[in-house]
Amino acid sequence: MGTIHGVGLGPGAADLMSVRADRLVRNARHVAYFRKAGRSGQARKIVEGMLHADVVEFPMEYPVTTEIPFSDPRYNEILSQFYAECCAHLRALAEAGEDVVVLCEGDPFFYGSFMYLFARLSDRFDVEVVPGVTSVTACAARAGMPLVARNERLTVLPGPLPEAELRARIDGAEAVAIMKVGRHLGKIRSVIADLGLLDRAVFVARATLADEVICPLGEAAEPAPYFSMILLTKGADPWL
Amino acid sequence: MGTIHGVGLGPGAADLMSVRADRLVRNARHVAYFRKAGRSGQARKIVEGMLHADVVEFPMEYPVTTEIPFSDPRYNEILSQFYAECCAHLRALAEAGEDVVVLCEGDPFFYGSFMYLFARLSDRFDVEVVPGVTSVTACAARAGMPLVARNERLTVLPGPLPEAELRARIDGAEAVAIMKVGRHLGKIRSVIADLGLLDRAVFVARATLADEVICPLGEAAEPAPYFSMILLTKGADPWL
Repeated sequence: MGTIHGVGLGPGAADLMSVRADRLVRNARHVAYFRKAGRSGQARKIVEGMLHADVVEFPMEYPVTTEIPFSDPRYNEILSQFYAECCAHLRALAEAGEDVVVLCEGDPFFYGSFMYLFARLSDRFDVEVVPGVTSVTACAARAGMPLVARNERLTVLPGPLPEAELRARIDGAEAVAIMKVGRHLGKIRSVIADLGLLDRAVFVARATLADEVICPLGEAAEPAPYFSMILLTKGADPWL
Repeated sequence: MGTIHGVGLGPGAADLMSVRADRLVRNARHVAYFRKAGRSGQARKIVEGMLHADVVEFPMEYPVTTEIPFSDPRYNEILSQFYAECCAHLRALAEAGEDVVVLCEGDPFFYGSFMYLFARLSDRFDVEVVPGVTSVTACAARAGMPLVARNERLTVLPGPLPEAELRARIDGAEAVAIMKVGRHLGKIRSVIADLGLLDRAVFVARATLADEVICPLGEAAEPAPYFSMILLTKGADPWL
């Protein structure tokens, strides 16, 4: 039986993947990765130029992304079917003794679709997860913005959350990282401005890539790319 | 002028540091790292066997760790003086044209003392931060425990927080990672048990190292090491 590796590739720059991930990617005979139909996919882009000449690629194309809301019962039905098909393919490879490297931008268990494969395969197959550098600390490093010290709390929020929930969560928080900003930029910015925290918030898009953007939240341009983040620290720590 | 690199080394296994970190560590002429007096230090341990034969090491030994509480004014005074001395040394090296690699376990801006050097040096020196894999996603990977999906929130809490605050923060949370468990294991466990969440909590110590421990929180033995964590997910996502 082969092993299925869920490999975190980090935030984007190829040399921010781990030594272990780098070795697995370069030696892989089979790679699989998620992507939106018609796109190359962020995970695949990160490993461009690294794959073995004889590698077999298995792109897993989402049948829907934002066309149907999470709350629509059809969303779960369509996606469940999709993940089942992906798993059937990976299972067949593993049963034929082949190792497969599933490429995951960021970290596989941090807002990554790989977890849906893991949940369906790990009981009967050898599934190894290689953690990756998340966009949260990558953005902090690029923005020169220490996140949390000593007894501070960190709250990670997805940008698509409803406005009232975002407001309540940010209001009670210390350091905050807001993921998946994209088309939610306007909503999130108005919440942060209303809370009087705009001068403490930084916008970061495509951290560590050539077209990276870092600016005060007040200056971020709409529409923001999907791979963008807002970091907010309340400066409670006097940094000694 | 030399560059001061704050280099995240990841959770412990040497091949979980990034390719960039690996290259910087192996080529460094000067390395600096924090440690408790009389200990080798976690960051220094991670790079054992990787340093250049001619490297110059600058261990920065904390004058106090837990002997004085954070709240004591002497704590800030003693630590401020210590960080000022560390910075004076790094500044002298950078002014002499030497690059310095500051070794940081995990990620430099995620509960790392490097941020105190950054805050004092980055206005006048070239300080580059290399993000690392944090213990949060490393522990999740090792425990086979997907952390957050879709619109879920993640809350990171330091274990030393007072019991009442821990209880309030965990009660309102979805996924929770509790850092720096160590001697606070009993207190944290009783909070989680009172909230009826014990069966959803996993204890992980020294993730990715040879003496790693992973077990249900109910079975974790006291005293726990400083580098230990509790992960708690509420399973709200049906994993499709």
